[in-house]
Amino acid sequence: MHHAPARTLTQGDQAVYTALFGARFAPQCSAEFARKLGFATAPLDDLLVFHTIFGKTVPEVSLNAIANLGYADCRFLAPVFPGDTLSARTEVLGARENTNRESGIVYVRSTGTNQHGAPVLTFVRWVMVRKRASENEVAGPQVPTLPKAVAPGALNIFPPKAFDTQNRNQSGGPRFFDDFRQGERIDHADGVTVEESEHMMATRLYHNTARVHFNAHTERQGRFGRRIVYGGHVMSVARALSFNGLENAYFIAGINAGRHIAPCFAGDTIYAWSEIVDKAHGTKDWGLLRLRTLAAKDRSCADFPDKSADGTADPSIILELDYWVLIPRV
Amino acid sequence: MHHAPARTLTQGDQAVYTALFGARFAPQCSAEFARKLGFATAPLDDLLVFHTIFGKTVPEVSLNAIANLGYADCRFLAPVFPGDTLSARTEVLGARENTNRESGIVYVRSTGTNQHGAPVLTFVRWVMVRKRASENEVAGPQVPTLPKAVAPGALNIFPPKAFDTQNRNQSGGPRFFDDFRQGERIDHADGVTVEESEHMMATRLYHNTARVHFNAHTERQGRFGRRIVYGGHVMSVARALSFNGLENAYFIAGINAGRHIAPCFAGDTIYAWSEIVDKAHGTKDWGLLRLRTLAAKDRSCADFPDKSADGTADPSIILELDYWVLIPRV
Amino acid sequence: MHHAPARTLTQGDQAVYTALFGARFAPQCSAEFARKLGFATAPLDDLLVFHTIFGKTVPEVSLNAIANLGYADCRFLAPVFPGDTLSARTEVLGARENTNRESGIVYVRSTGTNQHGAPVLTFVRWVMVRKRASENEVAGPQVPTLPKAVAPGALNIFPPKAFDTQNRNQSGGPRFFDDFRQGERIDHADGVTVEESEHMMATRLYHNTARVHFNAHTERQGRFGRRIVYGGHVMSVARALSFNGLENAYFIAGINAGRHIAPCFAGDTIYAWSEIVDKAHGTKDWGLLRLRTLAAKDRSCADFPDKSADGTADPSIILELDYWVLIPRV
Repeated sequence: MHHAPARTLTQGDQAVYTALFGARFAPQCSAEFARKLGFATAPLDDLLVFHTIFGKTVPEVSLNAIANLGYADCRFLAPVFPGDTLSARTEVLGARENTNRESGIVYVRSTGTNQHGAPVLTFVRWVMVRKRASENEVAGPQVPTLPKAVAPGALNIFPPKAFDTQNRNQSGGPRFFDDFRQGERIDHADGVTVEESEHMMATRLYHNTARVHFNAHTERQGRFGRRIVYGGHVMSVARALSFNGLENAYFIAGINAGRHIAPCFAGDTIYAWSEIVDKAHGTKDWGLLRLRTLAAKDRSCADFPDKSADGTADPSIILELDYWVLIPRV
Repeated sequence: MHHAPARTLTQGDQAVYTALFGARFAPQCSAEFARKLGFATAPLDDLLVFHTIFGKTVPEVSLNAIANLGYADCRFLAPVFPGDTLSARTEVLGARENTNRESGIVYVRSTGTNQHGAPVLTFVRWVMVRKRASENEVAGPQVPTLPKAVAPGALNIFPPKAFDTQNRNQSGGPRFFDDFRQGERIDHADGVTVEESEHMMATRLYHNTARVHFNAHTERQGRFGRRIVYGGHVMSVARALSFNGLENAYFIAGINAGRHIAPCFAGDTIYAWSEIVDKAHGTKDWGLLRLRTLAAKDRSCADFPDKSADGTADPSIILELDYWVLIPRV
Repeated sequence: MHHAPARTLTQGDQAVYTALFGARFAPQCSAEFARKLGFATAPLDDLLVFHTIFGKTVPEVSLNAIANLGYADCRFLAPVFPGDTLSARTEVLGARENTNRESGIVYVRSTGTNQHGAPVLTFVRWVMVRKRASENEVAGPQVPTLPKAVAPGALNIFPPKAFDTQNRNQSGGPRFFDDFRQGERIDHADGVTVEESEHMMATRLYHNTARVHFNAHTERQGRFGRRIVYGGHVMSVARALSFNGLENAYFIAGINAGRHIAPCFAGDTIYAWSEIVDKAHGTKDWGLLRLRTLAAKDRSCADFPDKSADGTADPSIILELDYWVLIPRV
């Protein structure tokens, strides 16, 4: 499946994204800082790229899906700059029928490429969809084998230059790769309230047309009685909040897994915290931190709300995201 | 009347417009696609240009108008690109007094030009305004003769190149000029809820300062007890929705007539449908579809709500727009 | 204190700012007009620059301040253009303890520089902060001597060229420096209602992370039971409104003093009026008007609400701003 039309992302899109989320990571905010890493100018936010590719796939993949169940093997393959034009295509990896025979789960891999045909992002997701007719025969379940986490060696370290230690005080935070320890937990401190117009503007920016986000008239009769915030909005809020404590985690290198544990609605205030799940050496200059970031609503994350022993999540938790970030080692 | 100051529209303005309306027509979204049509880069949305020129005329034409009654003979004369600076001027075409002698209708033609002095847009509108004093003498009515519709031959076909059939799958939809038949009706499917901050941001982007859109304090005592959404906002929502079914209707070539049948308020959910009123050959490569698009609020358009035999509109209908779109023939 | 990371401001940021405030001053809106003043392109809005530098200082200066008490000696030193990268640094000028010994007032000077190291803005502000411990010894009060107003000779007149009188009708208003008289009062006429998403988008655009603006969950238990609009938002609304009557006041040259007299909340409708406090010759081509602009909420400013004889402000007044604007003499 080729998802048309393509989308040229500009400085304007980045500015709207900044106004909506307030991300402050230095390479995306400062063209001067980006140039010190060897980029021609400031690259776009990784999640703006992710949401744009994801949004392109919605009409053909998930417009009428019952649920968006998970992500795996998401890798950011090349930086995207203002002026780049992104296209998306998707291949079906497999499917299995639910026991009710009325719905099933479909596994797809989507890939985004730039105007030069170079891939910039790839990820697998699986969605629950209705079958055309319950009596239809379906071939036996074909569930693809997916990595529980992206192996560090499969991640792309794309800053052309090493981080210059003379820039240590240019990024807003003092802690680099060697300063973090596995198992450490970080409260991202701030809470941000989401508004209807904000999540709709963001979601439209990505050309994501899923109806539950935009139509108060039908959602009044829907499952929750109101519009549902695009799950990716919570990811972007949590990523922006994570600057508090992870100021030097400049890039998302890959996403291992993601779960939207509960829906988010306008009026909810989002908080987040992260655990350093793993550390891996990328190159001699760059390290990789594997983060597990949890976002909660209407509840401070100062005490790190989490799953209990039986796997039940704290009722305030709305997102669990497992991903790799790229951070200078010095 | 010259309307100052001029306004330079940028990629940033286009990005804000995209976030507010989510239009997905390929030439405006993808610089690569635009280049295949012979443009240097992606042109700005036609209605962003329309609203900008319209907005410029508000202080001198309609700031204190009682009502904005209609449009005619609107033609898009040249594409507008990021970085272009638009100026607007208006000439009065005629006027006639109402029988109450306290108000009258004024007919004006407004024209937008770019920084090279080339006209990019022209349109006639008529507004009801108060007279300075009811006892003032007014010359006999001078009502200009206006076309009921712009003749296809008067429309400008401005893509420099023909549409390349190799790009058929690059635009998001399979149907081109020859695939539509006169009389056909198309439901644009989605519904979008409008928020106060969205319509105000859009209307400010156009420098439109009409007070009824911005001031909740005075509008509480006004006709409707609340702010009224700029009528052009509904036009942009309907145009963006019309991508569902009219994916290849890349450009608005002209507007024959437009009526804001009922006001729109924040919280309303807008749906739209279109009828193919006429078809005309533009060139051997490009065709023109004359569309009649109706926007309704808080009501799906799946059953095409319309006027009844006596001309009364369905009470949900808020906009009727009669316009020409440019679409490849292949 | 160096405030990292730096921030590259683009045409996109200006577009978001325009959508949020609708400022219409000609040099910032029209690249053509700006070129006639000798600029390479349209400079960014002065207050966008101010808020960006201010926002950068928040984490280290005022994130947890009890109150932001005042501004002095603010001077705009060079124009800022799309693509420029702004950095901010702050030095502490002095401090004095409050009589309760639990808090005190700290005086700081913040300076913004561009990517060439050239200063673009400098200002002093003072904030009330809690002491680490009330029993801590503090050196005797060190209160810096601050000018009550910036001397006109200390202001930078930065348009490279004189205003060309042929452009008199290009800016949207007929009155220039010589047309204003000291003591004159101008009602800025329009009222604009502020929404939660608007003030949050603006404040995030500036990377200002002060919690009271974003977190409805904690502010429900706060002083006012809801989020507080960033005081600078009211400054930008008032400046945009002041186009009505001060169309040729193209640049803010300096800010003498500013007081946020009462908080602003979403839903408030802001009006403004200005008094011409002083006039000064800048060059033979450019003059300086010293303005005192008052913003009021939910109250028209047609009758110029002000302080009473005993210094008590009208209860509707939320901002008093004393500043110099640059205006052509012709």
